[in-house]
Amino acid sequence: EMQEEEQVRKITCCAPINIAIIKYWGKLCEVENLPLNSSFSITLNYHDLCTTTTVTTAPSYVKDQVYVNDLWQDINENPRLKVCFEEMRRLARKQAISENAAAKELMSCSKKIHVQSVNNFPTKAGLASSASGYAALTFALGQLLGVKGDLSGVARRGSGSACRSMCGGFVEWLKSEESKNSTAKQFVDETHWPELRVFILVVSSKQKSFGSTVGMQRSVETSALLKHRIENIVPHRIKVLKQAVLEKDFCLFAEICMKESNQLHAICMDTFPPLRYLNNVSEKIMNFVYSYNERCGSTRVAYTFDAGPNAFLFTLAPFAEDLANQIYQVFPPSKDCTDTFFKTTEEFSFPNGKIVPDVTDCGLIEYVICTKPGPGPQIV
Amino acid sequence: EMQEEEQVRKITCCAPINIAIIKYWGKLCEVENLPLNSSFSITLNYHDLCTTTTVTTAPSYVKDQVYVNDLWQDINENPRLKVCFEEMRRLARKQAISENAAAKELMSCSKKIHVQSVNNFPTKAGLASSASGYAALTFALGQLLGVKGDLSGVARRGSGSACRSMCGGFVEWLKSEESKNSTAKQFVDETHWPELRVFILVVSSKQKSFGSTVGMQRSVETSALLKHRIENIVPHRIKVLKQAVLEKDFCLFAEICMKESNQLHAICMDTFPPLRYLNNVSEKIMNFVYSYNERCGSTRVAYTFDAGPNAFLFTLAPFAEDLANQIYQVFPPSKDCTDTFFKTTEEFSFPNGKIVPDVTDCGLIEYVICTKPGPGPQIV
Repeated sequence: EMQEEEQVRKITCCAPINIAIIKYWGKLCEVENLPLNSSFSITLNYHDLCTTTTVTTAPSYVKDQVYVNDLWQDINENPRLKVCFEEMRRLARKQAISENAAAKELMSCSKKIHVQSVNNFPTKAGLASSASGYAALTFALGQLLGVKGDLSGVARRGSGSACRSMCGGFVEWLKSEESKNSTAKQFVDETHWPELRVFILVVSSKQKSFGSTVGMQRSVETSALLKHRIENIVPHRIKVLKQAVLEKDFCLFAEICMKESNQLHAICMDTFPPLRYLNNVSEKIMNFVYSYNERCGSTRVAYTFDAGPNAFLFTLAPFAEDLANQIYQVFPPSKDCTDTFFKTTEEFSFPNGKIVPDVTDCGLIEYVICTKPGPGPQIV
Repeated sequence: EMQEEEQVRKITCCAPINIAIIKYWGKLCEVENLPLNSSFSITLNYHDLCTTTTVTTAPSYVKDQVYVNDLWQDINENPRLKVCFEEMRRLARKQAISENAAAKELMSCSKKIHVQSVNNFPTKAGLASSASGYAALTFALGQLLGVKGDLSGVARRGSGSACRSMCGGFVEWLKSEESKNSTAKQFVDETHWPELRVFILVVSSKQKSFGSTVGMQRSVETSALLKHRIENIVPHRIKVLKQAVLEKDFCLFAEICMKESNQLHAICMDTFPPLRYLNNVSEKIMNFVYSYNERCGSTRVAYTFDAGPNAFLFTLAPFAEDLANQIYQVFPPSKDCTDTFFKTTEEFSFPNGKIVPDVTDCGLIEYVICTKPGPGPQIV
């Protein structure tokens, strides 16, 4: 009985999402998820948005099973899921062999695994659930199988941007023609710039955005500007961005951040037929950011958009409450959502209470999540 | 009395607008309107859209006077207007001197001129009235002063794209660092491709679009992609477009036409802060074009947009009536405009009569002008 109990193992981990400042757009290799350019991101606090994944082994298990938000996933029909299992087992075996492990331990690399994964945020809202999802899965399998070392290359095989969620804080994902070298590296950790705040504005949109994998592919095939961006613009921008982060130069950070977002969507427009990820509300948010900064006489907020209409706004702690109020004024919630509009652990006070201002456009934004940089995956 | 009569001279000319297929975006010199890249356009039939300009000299005139659509223009406050007068007089004097003209003729170069200019289309609708306006003025002054030779360089000084309206048919405007070499040349005349049809969809928009002069300037200063476009993409596209026009290859023409429009707006998005000339309706029109072609199983229609939300659609004569019907179905006029919706000299029959279809979005397009390539400026 004792032996039986020991053989049941269960580990729960959670992993954060990340938001790219220097954008990943274009693959060198579809299967390996090798990017055509390096990218740079900020990992967000997993208390606010994360995927929580539980992995279990038990003697009774006869095959691998994966459930995401209680929905069964067919591993054999999902090459990205499959490759994560295969890669993790390969690394476990390789490690066991190099450590001259006993036969029993080698055997354990092949034990069947059950996975339960849930997101604490809407999965289909375009909030990068594949990044946190594959980071959580990879990290959890690594814990279960006792695999040491950098696993970001495995997470990358599941979903490109997932590799960046394997590190906390400020992260660079390196481009390389070699799979083993295209990994994520922490630049500075999440405590480096404690004043930084992130507002995620979830834009109400029934329209499902065009998948980024297919979108990238079309850009690589048809955009006359993408190659130039990759070769001549991105390397310089990463260098300048790193300097801005190191020096906590918000003004420079904001400029690169917005220019990169704009250029991603310029490349999408230059794709044939063009890809349109931003909608009317996204444009209104961009205009709001420029006019807010202009009114303040300095750069206090920056936006970035990925392949969808939701906005990620950056600001600094002293300006966060005022920004929250301005968002509430300019993009008021629809009447039935005022209490759940701001999802935040910070204490913002709204001078006008919860009164919906006299604006005809209510409910353009569904809700706002207030967060900040956070650490990488954790055992919970 | 006879002498007095002879001294009153009056000439009326009209000049067409043109639509760029290869876009002009970026100036080498603001004052001279020298473009950073060559462009290629189609001059549209002046019967459908034109500026009509009457120039008069009389002994009683004591100063130059310009009226546009009955509004007085202060020449001294308008450097572009001023430069056209000065340049035309300079050319007239130069020609008179080289021809050893009599003193009387030399004097006539300095006679005061009155100008009356009217557009037969809405001036503020973003339909390039400055192109037809400066072409008409330059051409009319040339007729009045008897100036021979290519005047497109003078029209260019008034408004860059006006130089292309000095030629009929298919026109290239050459880039050059020398003012005298940056002129418009006819590639083939308006009879070359008689099947080509142009639909101008005037998008209802209260929003005044951001001026293209200031927009270009901002792109030149801030877009990281513009230089690459100018140096590496445009020259090749002009070459391929000329081939497509020569061979009347509509499919290739359409592809370059749409890609160029997309790239102009990509550059605008890459400008900091970004320039947004397309609106929701423009996007709907783009989607309409792609899905119409897809439904037809071949490329039957192409779009291009300048620095504004209005669409210019190209098609061929056999498909024009069906396209007109589809536009009527997908973008129905508001109820009070059904009779004036299509401005056309062609006879389109609408199988559904003038019944407004069951679509909630009526009046997104104010009206449609159907036209085709046409000749350059004319005396009327």
